[in-house]
Amino acid sequence: MNTHQSSILAVGSLAFDSISTPAGKADQVLGGSANYFSIAASFFAPVKIVGVVGKDFPKNHLDWLSNHRIDTSGVQVQEGKTFHWVGSYDQNLNEAKTLSTALNVFEHFNPTLADHHKKSPWVFLGNIDPVLQNRVLDQIENPQLIACDSMNFWITGKPDELKKMLKRVDILSINEGEAYLLSGEKNIPAAAEAIRKLGPSVVIIKRGEYGAILFTKDSTFLAPAYPVARVVDPTGAGDSFAGAFMGFMAEQGLTRETRTKDPKQWDLILRRAVLAGCVMASFTVEDFSMKRLMHLEIEELVSRQKALMKMISVG
Amino acid sequence: MNTHQSSILAVGSLAFDSISTPAGKADQVLGGSANYFSIAASFFAPVKIVGVVGKDFPKNHLDWLSNHRIDTSGVQVQEGKTFHWVGSYDQNLNEAKTLSTALNVFEHFNPTLADHHKKSPWVFLGNIDPVLQNRVLDQIENPQLIACDSMNFWITGKPDELKKMLKRVDILSINEGEAYLLSGEKNIPAAAEAIRKLGPSVVIIKRGEYGAILFTKDSTFLAPAYPVARVVDPTGAGDSFAGAFMGFMAEQGLTRETRTKDPKQWDLILRRAVLAGCVMASFTVEDFSMKRLMHLEIEELVSRQKALMKMISVG
Repeated sequence: MNTHQSSILAVGSLAFDSISTPAGKADQVLGGSANYFSIAASFFAPVKIVGVVGKDFPKNHLDWLSNHRIDTSGVQVQEGKTFHWVGSYDQNLNEAKTLSTALNVFEHFNPTLADHHKKSPWVFLGNIDPVLQNRVLDQIENPQLIACDSMNFWITGKPDELKKMLKRVDILSINEGEAYLLSGEKNIPAAAEAIRKLGPSVVIIKRGEYGAILFTKDSTFLAPAYPVARVVDPTGAGDSFAGAFMGFMAEQGLTRETRTKDPKQWDLILRRAVLAGCVMASFTVEDFSMKRLMHLEIEELVSRQKALMKMISVG
Repeated sequence: MNTHQSSILAVGSLAFDSISTPAGKADQVLGGSANYFSIAASFFAPVKIVGVVGKDFPKNHLDWLSNHRIDTSGVQVQEGKTFHWVGSYDQNLNEAKTLSTALNVFEHFNPTLADHHKKSPWVFLGNIDPVLQNRVLDQIENPQLIACDSMNFWITGKPDELKKMLKRVDILSINEGEAYLLSGEKNIPAAAEAIRKLGPSVVIIKRGEYGAILFTKDSTFLAPAYPVARVVDPTGAGDSFAGAFMGFMAEQGLTRETRTKDPKQWDLILRRAVLAGCVMASFTVEDFSMKRLMHLEIEELVSRQKALMKMISVG
């Protein structure tokens, strides 16, 4: 498989985060959904990232990405400041509290895809305005598998655009609370079923330290989180989950077609991809920002993946 | 295996509960840790229950227990009223709020074992005063496997007696928050390890709708809860979990000796026992009190057990 065929397009934010958690603080550190996603996915498959940053964004980070199978030619560098999120977590590390959001150059972000982006078979739409998510999909030429994320801000703010987008994607990964908000249901199986009716044939409900649940038409998979000794910063856990999840599928060549052609393979690869996501997220939360991910060795990843498999095995 | 050899002794409360949950209310209904435990365990092995009730306790419930492999000869019927717990749950169904507790005849409960109780190979000490738990252990003749439960009330109120008891048991099942309180640790693996040092070689941390984690010396098992469509009343989930868990082990003949003689079998049966516990708890929460358990068919149990196995399988 050549690079074009197995590559993933990731559209979303590159940002600065200022974060406070029970474990400490980190000011003006690297963040952003596409940033976390790409680093995580790059362990499995080449990635093309599309986003926008200001002149203040460190060039050496873009260089670092380029040196790690991530094509950054789609990152626009514009006059002005980079998107800046300020957030905090209390003892309940599963929920972030947004203290302030400075969109800066992100306010007028308009993802325009180059030809080599349009040909990407795997597409991930990070948690951005569904209007932009739709605009990206308008430009994609022959997608094989599309995953997306969203959040309460868009669910309540742009429900129609969000629903239009959901009709066009294969997979939605979403937090538990947001799944309730989007579906109007009060328990997870009902929420997942309602969301599947909106479009995505696969729904993944993320539950922070309690793992994730995968729902497809015929199957439910309960994936636990890998138990880490100390959660330092949950920021980026969901996006790096999605990155490893998508990366694993791209590596295995899973596409929409697999669903009808080989349903067993489809189900098995999806399950293993969810576990890959859980493992990646467990590394992300061990340090602030993307520090842990940027120093993660493939051997550590494989070793923890094996350990997690043992922790869910029943003979 | 004859009845004596495979039977489980359960010591704890039989009670009336008055419960309010987001799904509704139930006043003065059947409850109590030994009651829930025994019904759950009886699906797998014969049970001998030891407890105390007042004259107001329905004789037909004791008859029902007797008709379901539960020996009630150890249930003392005393002058006065039965233990009455009043509690409520808000949207966070994982945590009960105690509104009032009337100990009544339970206040002077002193478990005195008959000969046929003392010979029980499997022993479960429900969540009662650790002074009484120790007194039960003093009377047991040749225990093969002892499990116990406890709660914050005893952890803070009688720490020394609790620690004395913990030195004498094989298995502790305990809620997540209580594990933190007991251990002084702030994450689950560290808490489990600290508790294992207090005595029990097996620690099970219960996490309500998120399942349970089994910790032994060499192994961790992440067990998910079975996702139920609607949680009506979480009361008794932990005790029925323990009942099915212990029942499954008794049915399989698992004892202390297995741990050293056949560590692989020990680990495997423990894991499957935890899943049996998760499945039983998922039925318990579907209706108020023990209504669902008392109408549960063995076929339903087997079918859900199979479904749960599928939901955690990765090929």
